[in-house]
Amino acid sequence: MTVRALLFDVFGTVVDWRSSVADELRGFFVPRGVTRDWVQLALDWRAMYQPAMEEIRSQGRGFVTLDTLHRENLVKLLRANDLTDLSAPEIDHLNHAWHRLRPWPDCVAGLTRLRARHVLATLSNGNVALMVDLARFGGLPWDAILGAEFTRSYKPDPHAYLGTAAALALPPADCMMVAAHNDDLHAAQDLGFATAFVCRPGEYGPGQRVDLEPDGDWDVVTDSMTGLADTLAP
Amino acid sequence: MTVRALLFDVFGTVVDWRSSVADELRGFFVPRGVTRDWVQLALDWRAMYQPAMEEIRSQGRGFVTLDTLHRENLVKLLRANDLTDLSAPEIDHLNHAWHRLRPWPDCVAGLTRLRARHVLATLSNGNVALMVDLARFGGLPWDAILGAEFTRSYKPDPHAYLGTAAALALPPADCMMVAAHNDDLHAAQDLGFATAFVCRPGEYGPGQRVDLEPDGDWDVVTDSMTGLADTLAP
Repeated sequence: MTVRALLFDVFGTVVDWRSSVADELRGFFVPRGVTRDWVQLALDWRAMYQPAMEEIRSQGRGFVTLDTLHRENLVKLLRANDLTDLSAPEIDHLNHAWHRLRPWPDCVAGLTRLRARHVLATLSNGNVALMVDLARFGGLPWDAILGAEFTRSYKPDPHAYLGTAAALALPPADCMMVAAHNDDLHAAQDLGFATAFVCRPGEYGPGQRVDLEPDGDWDVVTDSMTGLADTLAP
Repeated sequence: MTVRALLFDVFGTVVDWRSSVADELRGFFVPRGVTRDWVQLALDWRAMYQPAMEEIRSQGRGFVTLDTLHRENLVKLLRANDLTDLSAPEIDHLNHAWHRLRPWPDCVAGLTRLRARHVLATLSNGNVALMVDLARFGGLPWDAILGAEFTRSYKPDPHAYLGTAAALALPPADCMMVAAHNDDLHAAQDLGFATAFVCRPGEYGPGQRVDLEPDGDWDVVTDSMTGLADTLAP
């Protein structure tokens, strides 16, 4: 392998969106006297993510950022849960919960080691402003924010992967996709990228049924960014 | 002022392209027994930059990266100077001189201080791969690489500025353009951006005739990134 750049999925792979979003919802609503199952609301919000992107990937909707999709989905989520008396700035504040997601504990140490030898870029469906805020919030040392907004396409659209490698002036074989999701790695491998599976059994919590094991022939299989660094930058 | 993001011109403002490119040319050719005025060759190469971008800005050429324009110009420069027996990999190596430009001595310290309070992004005509290499070479702590390749337009095209601010989800008034070039600041100010002029009288060397003084009503005038930090993040 001559991997020169590592391209990272972010939600679930680098940051723990489920507990972070649940904490943001709890922190907003509980002081207002509202009780709900906040973890379930976080899971329900996330479940609206793929259908919203699918409208852009295959149903002719023009590209809009993930912040926009998240906000549209939040309005539906709030309505479905009888939480309808929020102001626009309050909805914006809740929507920015996705800008304040905690990294998994191994990420800052692992990424910092990996960056000594490799270019590190995001290949996430998150937009630039969201990724910049996440990086500053969590101390994530990216060399570049690429992926969906740069390529104006959502994974697994091939252009999201190929446009990101092209921006780094690298062929896919010189890039490794790093993700906690087998389908992301299949899409990348089909295009010639190297692959690393980082198992995150806590992403969806106790009910998680997918991505508990690698289901492809990945170049690296690990359970942390420090583990990835042990393999790539020992 | 409520400036939240600082957007940086890079060539001349952050890095010293003239002496760096001259040193790269000298280091390549002198061991091969070739002598020329290397500083003049660096200046001549740079002089081909604006006309090349103008073909894209106003003469209908589709967007190509600055690496591509630099290489086309290098081939012309070598031919004009009777330096025609280079291989393609040698030409590529010389073209990558622009990926190895030294920052001015105040930049790393100044940018590191500024980043504590502000988002720092490049708004350069350089492409992503070039900017990533420069940042890694010089230790420049950018939050995001934006500008020409992200917006697929070259400054002073308004879209280069407006598309960069939009990626950060900020109105122009919340962004400050930082540049050593008055024309860059005029273009940004006309669109509603705040402006900082960083005087770099050494950019072109002893023959420099332009940008020795501010010629507009800029929000900040300084001669270093540490000076900018003294003003914005005291």
